[in-house]
Amino acid sequence: MNLEDPATVRILEAAYAVVAEGGVRRTTMNQIADAAGLGVATVYRRFPRKMELVRALLLHEAVKVVRVVDAALADETTIEGQAAAGFTAFAHTVADRQLLVRLLRGDSDYDGGAVPPGELVDQIMVMVRDYLAGWIRDLQAEGRYLGVDADIVAEIQARLALSLVLAPEGRIPMHDDVATRAFATRYLVPLLGGESD
Amino acid sequence: MNLEDPATVRILEAAYAVVAEGGVRRTTMNQIADAAGLGVATVYRRFPRKMELVRALLLHEAVKVVRVVDAALADETTIEGQAAAGFTAFAHTVADRQLLVRLLRGDSDYDGGAVPPGELVDQIMVMVRDYLAGWIRDLQAEGRYLGVDADIVAEIQARLALSLVLAPEGRIPMHDDVATRAFATRYLVPLLGGESD
Repeated sequence: MNLEDPATVRILEAAYAVVAEGGVRRTTMNQIADAAGLGVATVYRRFPRKMELVRALLLHEAVKVVRVVDAALADETTIEGQAAAGFTAFAHTVADRQLLVRLLRGDSDYDGGAVPPGELVDQIMVMVRDYLAGWIRDLQAEGRYLGVDADIVAEIQARLALSLVLAPEGRIPMHDDVATRAFATRYLVPLLGGESD
Repeated sequence: MNLEDPATVRILEAAYAVVAEGGVRRTTMNQIADAAGLGVATVYRRFPRKMELVRALLLHEAVKVVRVVDAALADETTIEGQAAAGFTAFAHTVADRQLLVRLLRGDSDYDGGAVPPGELVDQIMVMVRDYLAGWIRDLQAEGRYLGVDADIVAEIQARLALSLVLAPEGRIPMHDDVATRAFATRYLVPLLGGESD
């Protein structure tokens, strides 16, 4: 999946709308090509099979979630503020991306069986972990949180995030910004370990 | 699923062996009845459809994992020891339960599409969370870790555990007991918050 290629992005954006409307099973490559305003051969050249397109679509959606979180972090100067803003932005953007949630959950209308969730979870987990590890390494470059393994803390956070996409209902507050922020500050920041570690 | 009923347990144990051998798609209710040494009507009375049996099988496997972890905790007297022993027992028992992993991952040979992973993750997450919350509440009854919400910490741990079943490969050490114990002590115990909180 080359997101530098404008046609690829156009195909994925069109596919999102078509699949969200009709589900994976009923969507054809021709419908996606029509929605993208491209010839079907152009679609097949990039995605020889429908399931490859659906996988790329899911990864593309996950990349968008990461970008939203990244933008939210940029406005904050403290770790507590970044954790709170980042997690709240995550909760909002996941709530807005029902197709990502349904496809990852394998809900039957959306033909989850054709998208093996295990492999996708692997790929998305690694992408999110590597993003978060970069954030922690930036803090460590300033001499902070040196006592933790950036990859491991990032992986705990990434697994938690992905679990909340797969199964959003639970005791972790996702629909009330005040509670969501308080959760992030109270439970996510300590994962970084004390500053004195 | 009534695990007090000996026939139910016999059916689930037999189903485990048959499904592990041939996958969900190719397994018939007759094969499961034969393997359990029961009439097929006895199987259908408890599980009117194959997918209900498969779902019960997965929950039963998850209950077994919880029981193994529970037994490991009983031998330890410190929180650090319980976290290390419990998480190591978890890593071992998950490594031994390939069918649970494959079904939850929706690997295609095992017909994951017929078992919506999202709903199963919901159910298993709640069961594991409630078990872990009980453990934390026992500590709180002794006046410890009063600063945390038992349900929330338990949910973080449960989501992490389930994520490691779905996607075991990563930076969290699962195949080296020394590293697994060190991970649990270093990263899981602090989730409980400091004693002074």
